[in-house]
Amino acid sequence: MTQPSFEKDLSDCTIAIAGLGLMGGSLGLALRGRVQRVIGIARRAETIDQALAASAIDNGCSTLAEGIAEADIIVLATPVSVILAQIEEIGRLARCGGVRDGVVLIDLGSTKERICDALDGLPAAIQPVGGHPMCGKETSGLDVAEVGLYRGAPFVLSPLSRTARPAMTLATHLVLAVGACPIELDPVRHDRLAAGISHVPYLAALAVFAAANDLAQDDAMAWRLAAGGFRSTTRLTGSDDKMMADILLTNREAVLAQLDRLQAGLGQLAALISTSDEARLRDLAGAVRQQRAAFLEQYGL
Amino acid sequence: MTQPSFEKDLSDCTIAIAGLGLMGGSLGLALRGRVQRVIGIARRAETIDQALAASAIDNGCSTLAEGIAEADIIVLATPVSVILAQIEEIGRLARCGGVRDGVVLIDLGSTKERICDALDGLPAAIQPVGGHPMCGKETSGLDVAEVGLYRGAPFVLSPLSRTARPAMTLATHLVLAVGACPIELDPVRHDRLAAGISHVPYLAALAVFAAANDLAQDDAMAWRLAAGGFRSTTRLTGSDDKMMADILLTNREAVLAQLDRLQAGLGQLAALISTSDEARLRDLAGAVRQQRAAFLEQYGL
Repeated sequence: MTQPSFEKDLSDCTIAIAGLGLMGGSLGLALRGRVQRVIGIARRAETIDQALAASAIDNGCSTLAEGIAEADIIVLATPVSVILAQIEEIGRLARCGGVRDGVVLIDLGSTKERICDALDGLPAAIQPVGGHPMCGKETSGLDVAEVGLYRGAPFVLSPLSRTARPAMTLATHLVLAVGACPIELDPVRHDRLAAGISHVPYLAALAVFAAANDLAQDDAMAWRLAAGGFRSTTRLTGSDDKMMADILLTNREAVLAQLDRLQAGLGQLAALISTSDEARLRDLAGAVRQQRAAFLEQYGL
Repeated sequence: MTQPSFEKDLSDCTIAIAGLGLMGGSLGLALRGRVQRVIGIARRAETIDQALAASAIDNGCSTLAEGIAEADIIVLATPVSVILAQIEEIGRLARCGGVRDGVVLIDLGSTKERICDALDGLPAAIQPVGGHPMCGKETSGLDVAEVGLYRGAPFVLSPLSRTARPAMTLATHLVLAVGACPIELDPVRHDRLAAGISHVPYLAALAVFAAANDLAQDDAMAWRLAAGGFRSTTRLTGSDDKMMADILLTNREAVLAQLDRLQAGLGQLAALISTSDEARLRDLAGAVRQQRAAFLEQYGL
């Protein structure tokens, strides 16, 4: 076995990024100049041209095979279902010597259990680390990529039991290089927490918007009255639906469990309103308001 | 009957504002200099001192009786339950000649049916107009008042059948003077729409936060992962709980009907996730995304 490339410094690494949307494009912008080279992989030639023009990558190519051949670190910045397919493809390529020995493979998928299971089946030449930066926006695409997207964001890393410590160190250095805060979490725990603070809030936003839209079908004046509060609450509905469907369906059990909690909470609120139980309604709302204030104070606005 | 004061120009009017929090304080800031005089009414002397120091009022006093005696326009900028009590008190004062004949009374309460019913019972000397500016924030108090709060905001006006046209004209001029957009709506219609675009979004935010908090009780890491999407979705939980309880309980039927729609929508989403129906999940999410884009394009971000 050759000297594994993951003992290199990040600054000596060639990074291949598959997927040049918001996450991949912003990662390229943040890494360029801090690493040896950023290779962007995208199917469409226009995307590569745009990424080159935006200085998000040093070189571009249209196939995984070509893009990852010389990489020390591969980053998969595609929707979860595409990541799962790309992990399979990278496995096939690795079995034919198509990757550097010891290459570190990091994905940026929003659910981790299914992906980490897939990563675990890869050939030994690959050092896999699950990843999930918590800095998405409700818009997507290279157009909205920005160099500072990762700055200050929590960045979950899920090493597998097979992941060698130097590979995890290199992944951590990458996270730090883009200004994010590495948080090591096991995949199941990540998915359970993400259901609560990301996936179910998205579903609630969808349902709030859809219910308001039902009203607006009868009376379009509803939209004229909608103010900042409505826009905030429903902001996440701008998320890409392919990406979100992948997330929800690869985190089904945790999402359904958390949806049950949400429904129970709404049922409790409905009961308090229907019995005009002002005291308990205020208790509940006041407790949440205080928890939120504590949360904002501790973790920043 | 004397010449009713509501035929005056707004610039000749003395305006009494009861309640010097976010809404009343911002109204004073926006009206001062455009009207004869702004009298602020607040129970606590410190609030009046603060409003004077902030130039939100010209004079202050601590009782309704004193504050409204010389007013051409009275604005009630207190929580809904306080507005209801103040309407009763103003009725008593008016029956003893404690208001100018033809004085225009506008409330800023977030629900309109109960308030307009109460306004309808006032003595004939008072010209009532229900009002609701759609520009609240999730923070409250004079500290966060700002001169531009009303600028560009929809401002619902609900005249009663007894309201004389000149009184409605004066109320409209007040709305325009603070830069808001007057929208005439009957109270029941207002309340039904507000349930959809304001009251139920608040309840959803509460329930999303409470469900996440359940998770965080077991695993405080949940808060470390919470990013911008969670903060947006739950922003409304910062609202004052007394104010919100008043709103929810004075709009019970419309809120419960809209909560039913929300629960049904969440149930539909849960069913699609539990059967892994990706196609219909994406259809639903994509439709909402497009409706939201159309809404933002038409009514601004």
